[in-house]
Amino acid sequence: MHDPSTPACRIEMGLADTIQLAHGEGGRLMRQLIENRIAPLLSLDRSGLQSDAAVLGQLDGETVVTTDSFVVSPLFFPGGDIGSLAVHGTINDLAMAGATPTHLTLALILEEGFALQTLDRILNSIADAANHCGVSVVAGDTKVVPRGAADGIFINTTGIGVLQGDSRMRPDRIEASDQLIVSGPIGKHGLAVLSAREKFGFKPAPESDSAPLHQPAQDLRNQLDLDLHAMRDATRGGVAAVLHEWAEASGQTMWIDAAKVPVTANTHAIAELLGIDPLFVANEGTFLVAVHPDRCEAALDCLRSHSVSAQCCVIGHAQPRDVSAVLIRRGIGVDQPLDEPSGAMLPRIC
Amino acid sequence: MHDPSTPACRIEMGLADTIQLAHGEGGRLMRQLIENRIAPLLSLDRSGLQSDAAVLGQLDGETVVTTDSFVVSPLFFPGGDIGSLAVHGTINDLAMAGATPTHLTLALILEEGFALQTLDRILNSIADAANHCGVSVVAGDTKVVPRGAADGIFINTTGIGVLQGDSRMRPDRIEASDQLIVSGPIGKHGLAVLSAREKFGFKPAPESDSAPLHQPAQDLRNQLDLDLHAMRDATRGGVAAVLHEWAEASGQTMWIDAAKVPVTANTHAIAELLGIDPLFVANEGTFLVAVHPDRCEAALDCLRSHSVSAQCCVIGHAQPRDVSAVLIRRGIGVDQPLDEPSGAMLPRIC
Repeated sequence: MHDPSTPACRIEMGLADTIQLAHGEGGRLMRQLIENRIAPLLSLDRSGLQSDAAVLGQLDGETVVTTDSFVVSPLFFPGGDIGSLAVHGTINDLAMAGATPTHLTLALILEEGFALQTLDRILNSIADAANHCGVSVVAGDTKVVPRGAADGIFINTTGIGVLQGDSRMRPDRIEASDQLIVSGPIGKHGLAVLSAREKFGFKPAPESDSAPLHQPAQDLRNQLDLDLHAMRDATRGGVAAVLHEWAEASGQTMWIDAAKVPVTANTHAIAELLGIDPLFVANEGTFLVAVHPDRCEAALDCLRSHSVSAQCCVIGHAQPRDVSAVLIRRGIGVDQPLDEPSGAMLPRIC
Repeated sequence: MHDPSTPACRIEMGLADTIQLAHGEGGRLMRQLIENRIAPLLSLDRSGLQSDAAVLGQLDGETVVTTDSFVVSPLFFPGGDIGSLAVHGTINDLAMAGATPTHLTLALILEEGFALQTLDRILNSIADAANHCGVSVVAGDTKVVPRGAADGIFINTTGIGVLQGDSRMRPDRIEASDQLIVSGPIGKHGLAVLSAREKFGFKPAPESDSAPLHQPAQDLRNQLDLDLHAMRDATRGGVAAVLHEWAEASGQTMWIDAAKVPVTANTHAIAELLGIDPLFVANEGTFLVAVHPDRCEAALDCLRSHSVSAQCCVIGHAQPRDVSAVLIRRGIGVDQPLDEPSGAMLPRIC
């Protein structure tokens, strides 16, 4: 063994501990990376490794698919990391479409020089999140680009699930008088990532809401059936983006009461300081529901029975189309239009 | 209208013609990008756009899935581009697993400042390739990272297909005396990309073999059934990587005759000049087949009936395990071990 303090050894360790271009080129180093690091963590079996495709068997129902790339910066933040986020984000897209998530694929783009220890930490986080959600990672891909051609690691997850029931939730089914429910306090994810990236040092540090939503979503669907008109996780663009999508799809106006929108004291304080409206901030474990008014209480009861959505509440309703697609009642009872987010505020939050 | 020669207009045009961070943030600009550019080219319908997941319906058979990210540089090269490659590569992974490709998802990671015109060209290429292969692009995702955090565009495609028949091809089914067939001239893709990247200026410029292989693969499977023991496209690591994978999986030695390996005169000349062995160079439309010797002629006949594999030939056979996993007969009849590619020769060729 070399003395670890000698420069020669440090250089050798450096090479052995980081991603090399050769890790992405189909040869021995790539095989070792997959067999020794990725496969054991993700419980991939050898047969899956020896083929570039995975046989899932006959799926019991209509197949639903979704894809998402994750480029979040920084890679680790209070409440999650790029690995857990890549699992939750894709599972939530399936859940919102009314599907039970069953399988994930995982594609990594790695920058030359990326620390293998950091990769292990992210893979562990992916494995934990996938296990917790009961989905299998069934196929993967690894590409390596030279230093400077990517920023550390980008992850794509594609999710496959099975549709529950026959009805398809579509925001064009939203009717005037439908109640709008949000599943919990908003704005946490975007502020957590932004604060971690900019090292603002807030105490307590804002924490992401990153979490899987398939269980409350399934329960809602089972219990409310056709009275559940739309469900959507409020990711990029936040609650405001969902309300605008729904207004456009349904031809109704979405009306919300600012005083009823749940925001934690910490989020409120930080958002005020930064001059950001939490309605425009991304969430990764919070969703909106549009439900027939007669079933609103049932929907709330159902959501309250899951810890991830225990703090749900009604924030407004749909109403016949006004001049404005989305209205918000602020302060002294005046309804104002709520802008559609145009973007550019918080890059790389997922 | 501005006079296009004024600086003010040029600046305005510049902004309007390139990807902005806001294109990736869930707001109006992102919606416009998807609705006006991506959806029309890929024939996505509005319902697919309004949800983050696509319902594929009940798949008729066992589902097969594969995922691949594409980071090729340069984006355009003789014989293809990152768009067509992203379709062919994923379709070929499904085809090699014995599946009929049916659906693709498409996830883009774009660098701020990327030209929208270039994006359109790539999306057109994706649409053409997908149409040609009879697959639908059913779900998508777009992320934008700041200048310098990615190199132009990275594409992930995840492919979904349906398994043909019951048998699953696995390289561990390769037996001693199995014949090894290659579907056409090797080494074209890697040399085409390398030559384009380094601007070597060879005339004629080497051209990629990028092409979909699902039709010959399906035909082979239908006609040969259980006598077809393994199929694999020779991508990263080239033919050498496939032979090593098969040797390890089957416990046999793979023996090939260098004189029988098909290489075009152009590939031969360029590979010699660069000191590269075409056996280690990536292909994107060329595959290997291991078949029972009694059915070798039938396999060749089948392959010859498809233009993409018309120049197929037998290059060797499996034999009982030797000291070496892979042997190659060169020149005067001496068998030499063929190294396993370790990588690092040709980064970013797919």
